[in-house]
Amino acid sequence: MNFGMVLKYLGILLISEAIIMTPSLFVSILYKGYDINAFVSTIAILFTVGFLAFAVKPKNKNIYARDGFAIAALGWILISFFGALPFVFSGAIPSIIDAFFEASSGFTTTGASILTEVEGLPYGLLFWRSFTHWAGGMGVLVLTLALLPTIGGGSVQIMKAESPGPTPGKIVPKVGHTAKILYMIYFSITIVQIILLMLTGMPLFDSLVNTFGTVGTGGFSVKNLSIGAYNNVHAEVITTIFMLACGVNFTLYYQMIKGNIKEAFKDEEFKLYIGVVLTSIILITINIYGNIFSSLGQALRHSSFQVASVITTTGYATTDFNQWPGFSKIILILLMFIGASAGSTGGGIKNIRILLLFKSMKRELFKIIHPRAVYTVKFGGKVIEEETLTEILAFFFMYIFIFIIALLIISLEGRDLLTTFTAVAATLGNIGPGLGTVGPMGNFSQFTDLSKIVLSLCMIIGRLEIYPILLLLLPSFWRKVNV
Amino acid sequence: MNFGMVLKYLGILLISEAIIMTPSLFVSILYKGYDINAFVSTIAILFTVGFLAFAVKPKNKNIYARDGFAIAALGWILISFFGALPFVFSGAIPSIIDAFFEASSGFTTTGASILTEVEGLPYGLLFWRSFTHWAGGMGVLVLTLALLPTIGGGSVQIMKAESPGPTPGKIVPKVGHTAKILYMIYFSITIVQIILLMLTGMPLFDSLVNTFGTVGTGGFSVKNLSIGAYNNVHAEVITTIFMLACGVNFTLYYQMIKGNIKEAFKDEEFKLYIGVVLTSIILITINIYGNIFSSLGQALRHSSFQVASVITTTGYATTDFNQWPGFSKIILILLMFIGASAGSTGGGIKNIRILLLFKSMKRELFKIIHPRAVYTVKFGGKVIEEETLTEILAFFFMYIFIFIIALLIISLEGRDLLTTFTAVAATLGNIGPGLGTVGPMGNFSQFTDLSKIVLSLCMIIGRLEIYPILLLLLPSFWRKVNV
Repeated sequence: MNFGMVLKYLGILLISEAIIMTPSLFVSILYKGYDINAFVSTIAILFTVGFLAFAVKPKNKNIYARDGFAIAALGWILISFFGALPFVFSGAIPSIIDAFFEASSGFTTTGASILTEVEGLPYGLLFWRSFTHWAGGMGVLVLTLALLPTIGGGSVQIMKAESPGPTPGKIVPKVGHTAKILYMIYFSITIVQIILLMLTGMPLFDSLVNTFGTVGTGGFSVKNLSIGAYNNVHAEVITTIFMLACGVNFTLYYQMIKGNIKEAFKDEEFKLYIGVVLTSIILITINIYGNIFSSLGQALRHSSFQVASVITTTGYATTDFNQWPGFSKIILILLMFIGASAGSTGGGIKNIRILLLFKSMKRELFKIIHPRAVYTVKFGGKVIEEETLTEILAFFFMYIFIFIIALLIISLEGRDLLTTFTAVAATLGNIGPGLGTVGPMGNFSQFTDLSKIVLSLCMIIGRLEIYPILLLLLPSFWRKVNV
Repeated sequence: MNFGMVLKYLGILLISEAIIMTPSLFVSILYKGYDINAFVSTIAILFTVGFLAFAVKPKNKNIYARDGFAIAALGWILISFFGALPFVFSGAIPSIIDAFFEASSGFTTTGASILTEVEGLPYGLLFWRSFTHWAGGMGVLVLTLALLPTIGGGSVQIMKAESPGPTPGKIVPKVGHTAKILYMIYFSITIVQIILLMLTGMPLFDSLVNTFGTVGTGGFSVKNLSIGAYNNVHAEVITTIFMLACGVNFTLYYQMIKGNIKEAFKDEEFKLYIGVVLTSIILITINIYGNIFSSLGQALRHSSFQVASVITTTGYATTDFNQWPGFSKIILILLMFIGASAGSTGGGIKNIRILLLFKSMKRELFKIIHPRAVYTVKFGGKVIEEETLTEILAFFFMYIFIFIIALLIISLEGRDLLTTFTAVAATLGNIGPGLGTVGPMGNFSQFTDLSKIVLSLCMIIGRLEIYPILLLLLPSFWRKVNV
């Protein structure tokens, strides 16, 4: 481990967080909220600690794979901790554990909340909550790489550690340039949605925060009833489309911009993603039409919104899907695990992994029929290496394993199994609401501090796709020598 | 596919079933039950159909891997169908679908029942129900191989297709000889348990059927309250020990007989199995002591019995564990998935697979820390080939995939999610009872015919470890040419 460089990058990250927090301070000043001082103090702390860490002068400026993972793991824990301070300092969320939960939920774009009442919060804090979704969606470290000149070799390792999916996308040779392109696309999508929402009659502030929650696939809302509170069909349709759009691999948008529109649509992961979305919408619409909604249009409207919200792991709600029949609920639970596409802002296991899992499964069956033939698994015409397949299969097992460990700890509270099960699934998958008492109309305030810490870690583990946090637990990870 | 040989072997299998059914006919005659004619007719049908199929004279006498899988898949569906006939003919279970469920549950050693009242059944049928556990436990095809001289090359393929676990055990070079040794060990264990149960004061008939249910890790009982009905601590302890003993790989017993006692205890799968059992017993005892049972002895007694019953996928009950707290229930659900050891009579994913999944996971983490080092996964000192690892990882995914498909179909009934979830887990894992309304004091009569068929298939899919039945669905599986 190159401790010096790790510390230096963590410093940069905290400075970035101070910069990211500044707009929220402005909002706070604009609305003359009681949270002004909380933001000022936190920003001051971030700059101080950040510059102290940045001042470290490491001899070796190279960053290896494990350093990248250490920066991602420790970095995300730190930004969640410091991101929690405005809530604590302002007194809006007095408990640091509750505030840490809320901030992790923001950065990891989960959207699960311990607040029973959001509408009373000052505007600055509401803005901060949602803006963490926006910053976390495309990656805080990626944002740092986009904003600042690289300070050493191997920044690709940092991007790898933070980017979702088994094939992290360097779309152009330079990492900093790639990060800039991704953020340009992300920024454009954000602007378009804000304008569209305002055209439906939504106030500017609400349009801003709801867009942050949508494009970051976060799900924090400024209304207790989430997007359902507006009862605005146009806003719902726009949100549905933008949630789905941000669950797509952003590399495809870059291809489209470069004119390869046909190729983008041929992408196998994209096709699977669209297939899963459409199938789920149809099945749920049939299932809820007649017993939950008497009109087919209403059934379609709510099933589309909810499917988009859950598969992209956003977590907005327009209705209490906790009341839906078991079949629909199971589909939603499955979507929590499947999640969005690699290279999107969404969480979950990711469609590309599911696709390759299916291909591996198919291959095993064919191997039995033709034991002497050689089968390879292909993706987009290219042969996937055996090692990558083992990695993905092991990832799937790891995901389930982490899920089970968290499930066991949370179950000690003695709540009903549906609540326990979906509380873990919804945090690990970065969705937000689950079912039962953590359903769209419930919240996470009911849990003990221990459970809140475990669920916060689930969010960070899920966002960083397990490896970085798990590595922190291995003693050999901390050894100084790089092999 | 070598259709001729497949047909010939299916014929032999049906003749074996006729022979297996004869003891039940004797019991029926002894007790002068109303089921005598039902057994006579079924045995006659089995002999007729069996000899017709056996009379086929195939040109090619070789059996390839896929033929083995076809024999196993079709064979198990057929024996369940014909095994259901005595229930239907006697009128005890009028519906063929219900009877098919009961017979599949018997042969696959699941022990899930659609009967609301077992104590009224005639003795012949009760004996048959439990005897199918005994025959199915070590494998009906393996029994056939043990009883009859081989009729062609490649009978190892049949054994492979029916034996549980990724490393089917030819413990001696000859398949027929291996099958005989396995059945000798199995038979000895059976005799010992019968004698021990009788010594506790249990009647002969009850000792017989309860032993069949124990050593086959089946779980059908002749009492509505399962083993709990006897309220006999000694019988419970004996049953606990014998369930656990039959969840061990039988190859280890062969090693012990040959004097390699130390080596048997060093077996990594055995150590994991014992570790999981002890950990689960301790955790559940702590969890239920005080709130469910006021005495520590009672808590330990019931937690030991239930852990043994679930991990070995037997499914006997001494108490209604559906009333236990969530933490204990989740552990039991996990044990349903883990299951027993490879080469035992139990079901589930199997300990050896779980062990290798963990080793693969650990390797992936080390690969990140030391990207240039080469890691191999070892088991019992031997390097496991990359291909075997991919197979096991793919198997895990397939298991979850089949589970999800069945879950979706069963959830259409609109029952509570716990019942739905555990009904599938308990049938696919060959356990028997689940939780909720399919708990130890409930039964499966509540489901529609469609669900009963799906759950019956789950039992067979689980028993044959997925591949054989899944292969039946691939068109290329049916092609005549063997590659």
